[in-house]
Amino acid sequence: MREREAEEAGRRLRVVIVGAGFGGLACARALDGKPIDVLLVDRENFHLFTPLLYQVATALLNPSDIAFPLRRVFRRSRNVRVRQGDVVGIEFESKIVHLGDGAALPYDRLVLATGSANAYFGNPGFAGHTIGMKRLGDAMRLRNHVLSCLEMATRSPEPEQRRSWLTFVIAGGGPTGVEYAGALGELLRLVIGRDFPELTLDATRIVLVEGRDRLLGQFDARLGAYARRVLERRGVEVRVSTLVVSADERSVQLSDGELIACRTVVWSAGVRSSDPLSEDAADRAPGGRLVVDARLRVPGADGVFAIGDAAAAPERLGGEVLPMLSPPAMQEGRYVARLIAREARGHQRPGESPPFRYVDKGIMATIGRSSAVAQIGPFRFRGLVGWLAWLAVHIYYLLGVRNRAAVLASWAWNYIRKDRTIRIIARSEPDAVAESVARPSVEAPAREAAPRPDP
Amino acid sequence: MREREAEEAGRRLRVVIVGAGFGGLACARALDGKPIDVLLVDRENFHLFTPLLYQVATALLNPSDIAFPLRRVFRRSRNVRVRQGDVVGIEFESKIVHLGDGAALPYDRLVLATGSANAYFGNPGFAGHTIGMKRLGDAMRLRNHVLSCLEMATRSPEPEQRRSWLTFVIAGGGPTGVEYAGALGELLRLVIGRDFPELTLDATRIVLVEGRDRLLGQFDARLGAYARRVLERRGVEVRVSTLVVSADERSVQLSDGELIACRTVVWSAGVRSSDPLSEDAADRAPGGRLVVDARLRVPGADGVFAIGDAAAAPERLGGEVLPMLSPPAMQEGRYVARLIAREARGHQRPGESPPFRYVDKGIMATIGRSSAVAQIGPFRFRGLVGWLAWLAVHIYYLLGVRNRAAVLASWAWNYIRKDRTIRIIARSEPDAVAESVARPSVEAPAREAAPRPDP
Repeated sequence: MREREAEEAGRRLRVVIVGAGFGGLACARALDGKPIDVLLVDRENFHLFTPLLYQVATALLNPSDIAFPLRRVFRRSRNVRVRQGDVVGIEFESKIVHLGDGAALPYDRLVLATGSANAYFGNPGFAGHTIGMKRLGDAMRLRNHVLSCLEMATRSPEPEQRRSWLTFVIAGGGPTGVEYAGALGELLRLVIGRDFPELTLDATRIVLVEGRDRLLGQFDARLGAYARRVLERRGVEVRVSTLVVSADERSVQLSDGELIACRTVVWSAGVRSSDPLSEDAADRAPGGRLVVDARLRVPGADGVFAIGDAAAAPERLGGEVLPMLSPPAMQEGRYVARLIAREARGHQRPGESPPFRYVDKGIMATIGRSSAVAQIGPFRFRGLVGWLAWLAVHIYYLLGVRNRAAVLASWAWNYIRKDRTIRIIARSEPDAVAESVARPSVEAPAREAAPRPDP
Repeated sequence: MREREAEEAGRRLRVVIVGAGFGGLACARALDGKPIDVLLVDRENFHLFTPLLYQVATALLNPSDIAFPLRRVFRRSRNVRVRQGDVVGIEFESKIVHLGDGAALPYDRLVLATGSANAYFGNPGFAGHTIGMKRLGDAMRLRNHVLSCLEMATRSPEPEQRRSWLTFVIAGGGPTGVEYAGALGELLRLVIGRDFPELTLDATRIVLVEGRDRLLGQFDARLGAYARRVLERRGVEVRVSTLVVSADERSVQLSDGELIACRTVVWSAGVRSSDPLSEDAADRAPGGRLVVDARLRVPGADGVFAIGDAAAAPERLGGEVLPMLSPPAMQEGRYVARLIAREARGHQRPGESPPFRYVDKGIMATIGRSSAVAQIGPFRFRGLVGWLAWLAVHIYYLLGVRNRAAVLASWAWNYIRKDRTIRIIARSEPDAVAESVARPSVEAPAREAAPRPDP
């Protein structure tokens, strides 16, 4: 080892990780402290704890509760550097990552952990008339939007118009759709009646639309049926085997023929792998995910790995493709970090290392107050037990003592006081520098060469 | 009384209060429970605790910590209703308030509590190249902007360019400028060095520019001198008797001849009364404030009162005009509420009631960690004692148990851990409905007639 280190003294292995979601962050943390130069690139300056995004969208949590500054994570690291930027292209031959601000980042190993974005099944019009739930800005927008709809409803003397402001259609009955539907129902119950004497809860309507024949397709059928019963008991209309056919500002057309007048369509019906490669730069699996081998390498691209939602990673050698969830992403990130670290130490070529193998730790989803479903190995939990398990797991995986304390305090306040104090319609004023720091714009400041991290 | 109520049974006095700042809110709360129909109109759906705005701008507090939903304040009220909207015109003759969304609100008594906006002393170009500190969106923008400047600095290999990203000019040495300068210095000290290994604190520069010959002009001269010493000891350059002559994206020109290359100019140099009346609709005092009589009535406009920053209220009959601060605004709000309530009970015509008289409870400002100045009657406090007094007063006046707890927790965390976890660059995605709920836009939904509050 000593020889090897000396040999490399002049030039350590340079690893660029694109994306600081669950996969990229796990990879960077696993490489922290190793004799490797790591550069973690993300469009945002924070890691987003997406499983709680719906709670920001329903005014239960502050945006900062689930967003953890990346520089803080690696504050004590001597080899991991953070760079905010938007990757616009990658040259596999010359091993360079291009950022939107003009910077060119050379790499020896590249980890693509770029996640997924909303997919609209060939209906690009959906994007303009629906609100997604993938990024922090989406959740803040959805909070502002829903609260604004309630204000607009108070001004509509005509019952039909008022009803359309109070009708919320959620496309997609997976965990995101189910969790948001439950939390939105709770928000309306808590807020209308107490805060809006002009409105009644009867006039509100939440419709959850799912294309498959049941909710929570990834879960056991009994748990999906349970989720449906709980939601329906709480006033959510559940439509299975139904698709959103079209949407505009005033209405949604469902495949069962119903036209619903509404001002809000939340999109959680489909995601598609998202990466900065051109369509033909790499082989793709269904959903646009990058094809990777059993060691998560992108075939034909030397030194390039892909993990998480961006990659179609097999469960084990020859196994099924893993779902787009945080546990596979994190395990893949740590696996790739191990591979790279071993290689840097000169112990092993990637081809010699054992292939990736996923350890299933289970899946879970909440359905609102005191109710959740969880599926861990052969066990199925639901109701209060599932909910408590859900709380514990999410607090455990959340980054940072302060964020954990803030989230616990908010949950306790919400549970005991039945109150959501964060229901403010707050827009940050636009700022040219803040816009350009990750995305170049017309008013972007002069482009500067990006310094290489130099620990 | 009983006769009077019966007499009015068909039609209670309708009061419209425009603006839910300190003045408007105090007025509405004082009218809560009275046999009067009150409608409180504001552009936002929350009351903003502006004295702590600079702490949101420096990543110490969450926006929701200092923004309290208005509907929550009046949740149990049977006679106060809240309406989000932007007042675009007022007809004194027919007693109607016009909102930007087309609604027309009739009133019997109108209270103008519309506050103030930034004033640029005839340099409209300043507005586009400076960031204000008046509204919540400004503070969120400033937070995003400053954090983005640090990111941009890490990408600037050229020292001069890097320095310009790290130079922050604050125009105006009143309480807002002093408090922001102190808090910004703290933010940079806490964040750079720990989070930004690429940067050093030496490269940063904070310049506080004040046109008068000392800081904190409203305070005792010794307290202003003390504030200056503390700021300078903490690395802030203080320039008194100096004006900002011009500003663009890259630099600021000072009246002493210096041209400072910088990317951030914070504007706290001047405010101007802000109201929806046309220039000639009412008499105005210096600063654009509405002239009012000793009972805070707007001469020539029947049933119209003006309070707070919007009005040039005399301290007492024939006394000096009160400064633009929250204590006079609150006292004026409560005074006008008393006047209106008495009138509604038929006890008194406004002309018979005693004129408004201000009770000075003192002024205070923080200069950063463990240091503040306070001036209460003949007493002067500074240093730790002043700071503790400042903390106590601000917690006391903050609305809501949860907000108080959240702010206290943030302060304790910041003080003990020397950490600011809210340093995320977070922009909410734009939303047409949220934009139109208070301000009409091209994409605004159909205009609906506003319902009268009907308690």
